[in-house]
Amino acid sequence: MLRIIDKNIRQSIDYVAKQFGTMRNDIAFSKDRYLIKRGPYAAVADADITHFEKILPSRSQILLGLDETAGYNRDYFKYVRGLSEVVLKPRTTDQLSAILQHCNRRKLALSVYGGNTGVCGGSIPVFDEIVLSLELMNKIESVDEYSGVLVCEAGCILGTLEQKLSEKGMIMPLDLGSKNSCQIGGNLATNAGGIRLMRYGNLHGSVLGLEAVKADGTVVDLMSQFRKDNTGYHLKHLFIGSEGTLGVITRVAIACPASTTTQNVLFLGIEKYESVLRTFLEGKKRLGEILSSCELIDNDALQCCITHAKTYSPIKEYPFYMLIETTGSNAVHDEQKVNDFLEELLVSGLVGDGVVTKDPSKIKDLWQLRERIPDGTFSNNFCLTYDLSLPLNNFYDIVPAMKQRVGHLVKLVCGFGHIGDSNIHLNIAGDELTPEIQRLVDPFVYEFTSKLKGSVSAEHGIGLLKPNYLKYSKTNEAIRIMQQMKAMMDPNGILNPYKVILL
Amino acid sequence: MLRIIDKNIRQSIDYVAKQFGTMRNDIAFSKDRYLIKRGPYAAVADADITHFEKILPSRSQILLGLDETAGYNRDYFKYVRGLSEVVLKPRTTDQLSAILQHCNRRKLALSVYGGNTGVCGGSIPVFDEIVLSLELMNKIESVDEYSGVLVCEAGCILGTLEQKLSEKGMIMPLDLGSKNSCQIGGNLATNAGGIRLMRYGNLHGSVLGLEAVKADGTVVDLMSQFRKDNTGYHLKHLFIGSEGTLGVITRVAIACPASTTTQNVLFLGIEKYESVLRTFLEGKKRLGEILSSCELIDNDALQCCITHAKTYSPIKEYPFYMLIETTGSNAVHDEQKVNDFLEELLVSGLVGDGVVTKDPSKIKDLWQLRERIPDGTFSNNFCLTYDLSLPLNNFYDIVPAMKQRVGHLVKLVCGFGHIGDSNIHLNIAGDELTPEIQRLVDPFVYEFTSKLKGSVSAEHGIGLLKPNYLKYSKTNEAIRIMQQMKAMMDPNGILNPYKVILL
Repeated sequence: MLRIIDKNIRQSIDYVAKQFGTMRNDIAFSKDRYLIKRGPYAAVADADITHFEKILPSRSQILLGLDETAGYNRDYFKYVRGLSEVVLKPRTTDQLSAILQHCNRRKLALSVYGGNTGVCGGSIPVFDEIVLSLELMNKIESVDEYSGVLVCEAGCILGTLEQKLSEKGMIMPLDLGSKNSCQIGGNLATNAGGIRLMRYGNLHGSVLGLEAVKADGTVVDLMSQFRKDNTGYHLKHLFIGSEGTLGVITRVAIACPASTTTQNVLFLGIEKYESVLRTFLEGKKRLGEILSSCELIDNDALQCCITHAKTYSPIKEYPFYMLIETTGSNAVHDEQKVNDFLEELLVSGLVGDGVVTKDPSKIKDLWQLRERIPDGTFSNNFCLTYDLSLPLNNFYDIVPAMKQRVGHLVKLVCGFGHIGDSNIHLNIAGDELTPEIQRLVDPFVYEFTSKLKGSVSAEHGIGLLKPNYLKYSKTNEAIRIMQQMKAMMDPNGILNPYKVILL
Repeated sequence: MLRIIDKNIRQSIDYVAKQFGTMRNDIAFSKDRYLIKRGPYAAVADADITHFEKILPSRSQILLGLDETAGYNRDYFKYVRGLSEVVLKPRTTDQLSAILQHCNRRKLALSVYGGNTGVCGGSIPVFDEIVLSLELMNKIESVDEYSGVLVCEAGCILGTLEQKLSEKGMIMPLDLGSKNSCQIGGNLATNAGGIRLMRYGNLHGSVLGLEAVKADGTVVDLMSQFRKDNTGYHLKHLFIGSEGTLGVITRVAIACPASTTTQNVLFLGIEKYESVLRTFLEGKKRLGEILSSCELIDNDALQCCITHAKTYSPIKEYPFYMLIETTGSNAVHDEQKVNDFLEELLVSGLVGDGVVTKDPSKIKDLWQLRERIPDGTFSNNFCLTYDLSLPLNNFYDIVPAMKQRVGHLVKLVCGFGHIGDSNIHLNIAGDELTPEIQRLVDPFVYEFTSKLKGSVSAEHGIGLLKPNYLKYSKTNEAIRIMQQMKAMMDPNGILNPYKVILL
């Protein structure tokens, strides 16, 4: 994915204009880059606003005009900017359904808006679509400590849910850096991953039920609260990961694990990639059920992080580092397991050096060495970042390959990520992003990933920025079924147009 | 679900005739119960057989005539019998695709055949559909111990895969009583649950990728091997649990956990249902990450099992029993955890009596007390069995309610099941299944479940026997989307007709 760091948000609009200008001839921009043709969609009329005012009882549920809507037109990472002049904030599924029914009849396009923390431009309107914000649908309906099931509305903030659960000795099955802004509905819509995925699996496993509203306003109640429910097609999965293009998720039932009470972190220095793999395998065997994270960091990534964050590494320099975390329910047992594991790694020579800690503040320091890497790489004038799933045997190959191609033209090529989930982040950073660098990087990364049957977007989704790259991870036959699915669920294409799948 | 135990398989055909006779007027039976009208489908002609002989190079890949096909026309549990005279056994996806292409063009209906261990009549033809057996597509393609990913063809037997994985210190994420017959493709198609579900989650979480062939022969390659792949709609979930009606699963990539090396089992006697719930909650907290099964057995179920299996209980009689299993990676740690847990339960009075063992033969004995219950209940002249998901607060209410309704007319009403997954099996058994009993039981169980928003088929699926009951767990809107989906994926309705969803 191309991440252009610039202070001039106008360039993002250029990017969008370029993307759609070349793909569709029913969309056009004026010289000052305002949309003048909007494809198959109608423009919002005064009568529409009057209608929305009837549906939404409070004036505060409707924002009108670019001043009022400004916050909803700008994505957090400043890739893109929209020009919507209407934001609607339903409080109930019925209100939301009535809005969609009207929009579908009138062919008014909508952009579904959650916590606006997406990184692929999917979270805000592209042009002047109506923004449908879920923020007022934020009731926690029930928390059942026996079954471990949380039921809530889609607009609940992830961090708020986590806090509520902690009172009952439970945790959310997912955790994200953006937890204090992102909404659970958006988490589902984008099939968000995060650092608990290795332990608790992805949302397709932990979401038990959901309610969604189709483009035509039909409410689809799939609110099962059970792990086992084999009654007909498993429709909920349609909505998980479809980025709001097949329906708007309004309620969620999710299985939440019991809290763990102990935490240990190992930080290891390793000479060869092969030893990284063997260490991971040993970890799965020796730490078994308490293994909760397994991260890889290469030396360039670590040095960049250390310099930028003004921190230090607890061990001397190695080509590779691993951060391995355990969580469990018995402090004595866990400590013994991690200590034995580290000793074995050092004695066998698999690992050159390593430390282990159960001290919360030291754990935080060690995690900083992984989590603050992006702060370091993005402090450069430009940073191209890719979020790839690759087979473990070839997991790191992309980094030396890329160094060979552009190492002499940039300041940094590094790799780091969730090796436990086969998910690597490749960053390429430097002073000036020249066309030569772009040409050497962009098709190569996608083609390299495609050849290894990897994923060109492991966690981040497709959004607005990546529909053209879908073909590198999905076959034509699969894309055709996606298109049929979109046509079936949203025949007028009013939900999140221009995103995920191009019809 | 109605389970009619009889030795006269003709009655099953009566059942099917009755079900379809009343639902469709384009299907009719002759007096000797042979199909004389087959709905929208064509009959297999000699030219079709000639065509199949061109697709399938070996004579052993085609069975013709009722004598040769007999084994494919009878389900394991003898609910139903089909009358197919053609069985096709492709060896490759290409062969399977060519068969479907031809059948779709000719409107020849097919029944997709895996290990034939389904319990809802979904595994064999209803009338004279062509049987498409996956048994020759049984190659294990790869086992990657680093990533934990197994890739294989759909016809692989679950037990064979388990054995192959054990050589590399891994296990399948699911385990079923039928593991030596059932096929992994059928496991996916029916979203099979089983006794590892509580620990490792369901197949929507652990299946990483699959290949499926659509009714028109289109091969859909969704063979990702990654836990993270957010590139477009997550189509693989369409095929998981759709019982072969949307496409034929041909290959699978599945995430497999590392083997555990330790096992402990507790068997507890408990006075009140409320204490059962509190024991479960304590188990989640105290045993945490090593908790792997949590089963409930009521006293009537246990006594029936003991009498039939000529075995004994290690503790005196209680209204309720729980069987709790742990698996882990450190014998000393696990033993200490389970011993501490049992002591706490006894001291607090939550549990009346209990034993714990790590001895493999004693563990087997304890599991028999749960696993052989159905042998006992089905040894009666009739046994009605229901497979329900119900909220834990009302989990056991169905049993006393049913006792009150029919207790005086039957020999046994009992409940047992996977309380850890909110899944209860209700059995009602006796000497003669009278219309009065049927009338008192059948709508009541489904309506009771529906009122609590439970699932009327937790693990077993819908198949042929339950399409009429779908409405108790799914709304009209959801069923309508299922119908649209079926029409989209299989417009001629040739795949597993009369099953799951009625158009």
